[in-house]
Amino acid sequence: MNKKYTGKLISLEGIDGSGKSTLATALAKCITQEGQTVLLTKEPGGSTLGIHLRSIVQTSKDNLCAQAEFLLYAADRAQHFQQVVIPALQDGKIVISDRMNDSSVAYQGYGRGLDIVMIETVNAWAMTNIKQNLIFFLDIAPQAAMARVLKRNEQLTRFEQEKLEFWQNVRAGYQEIFKGRPEVATLDGIQPQEVLLEQALKIIKECGII
Amino acid sequence: MNKKYTGKLISLEGIDGSGKSTLATALAKCITQEGQTVLLTKEPGGSTLGIHLRSIVQTSKDNLCAQAEFLLYAADRAQHFQQVVIPALQDGKIVISDRMNDSSVAYQGYGRGLDIVMIETVNAWAMTNIKQNLIFFLDIAPQAAMARVLKRNEQLTRFEQEKLEFWQNVRAGYQEIFKGRPEVATLDGIQPQEVLLEQALKIIKECGII
Repeated sequence: MNKKYTGKLISLEGIDGSGKSTLATALAKCITQEGQTVLLTKEPGGSTLGIHLRSIVQTSKDNLCAQAEFLLYAADRAQHFQQVVIPALQDGKIVISDRMNDSSVAYQGYGRGLDIVMIETVNAWAMTNIKQNLIFFLDIAPQAAMARVLKRNEQLTRFEQEKLEFWQNVRAGYQEIFKGRPEVATLDGIQPQEVLLEQALKIIKECGII
Repeated sequence: MNKKYTGKLISLEGIDGSGKSTLATALAKCITQEGQTVLLTKEPGGSTLGIHLRSIVQTSKDNLCAQAEFLLYAADRAQHFQQVVIPALQDGKIVISDRMNDSSVAYQGYGRGLDIVMIETVNAWAMTNIKQNLIFFLDIAPQAAMARVLKRNEQLTRFEQEKLEFWQNVRAGYQEIFKGRPEVATLDGIQPQEVLLEQALKIIKECGII
């Protein structure tokens, strides 16, 4: 997709508690062991600016409106691409990001009801039209994901406090936007970590990324 | 412009040091004395979220990229409209804002070179298509404005540290975008405060705002 860069871009998507972070970390470790240079990163929070913004969007008590919420993620995304992702792709690295543009479409578009076309337009601009070589979608029932979230956290973020209906909308959003896209691999998020890792690695190899 | 609201929206624009804040404060005082209810506000920083964001954009040492800079202003703008501007317009207030959407077009568009159409599209979305009833553009030569800024501040913001060429571009941007727009009143920013106040009040009355 991005001929001017020698690196490859992989993102992991899914609702909170779907296992993205665990899989991203495991993938980064395995691919590094195979001799490739990996950059493991995330959105929001993949840059110094992003760490501030992540804290604002996840813990703000200011009744953050949906548009401001999206625009903060978009600001984080633009900075993340300029400062972290693009330099790594230029260096030929395999960039693995825990969430990226599709999170905004699913959460702020399908979850909060914002205009999808506007979100996609701003996302593409923030990413300077760079696209992923591969996207893993960890699909899981919201009830199962929420049980995991409640188990691991004492302090829930603004998102983790949302009701079941929100999560159902976000999941449906992911399913909708990923339908029929050749660069998207859907994995069943309820499976054990080692099974997910094995499946994901197989796909990465089949795609010729490693 | 905004038939569903009984309030009126006025913004003040111009480069740093053009006298916007002084004029905005004086206008708010005078209009209040005439018996109208005024909300004096600003961008960035007109909401609780905005105060955080204002600090980030003005003092960040993270090499903030131009797109992230604009998107932070846009997030501030969206929150400002939802939380502050729209409720005041619904209440029939006269809202006076020290900077608004046109600042982003002039600074991030003409000053930083970002795509003008994208900035205007995101601005309109953040403002839910609400438009000003009146815009004051305080036009002033950058050299004169910079002399004022240097006189009043010990610690310069990221913007105030910019070179003369940046300010010339921003000023030219303002002149370009305000050309031929009936809702824009251009004032000569080098004039004394009391003259500017008198001119602005006369225009506000002629427009039927008070």
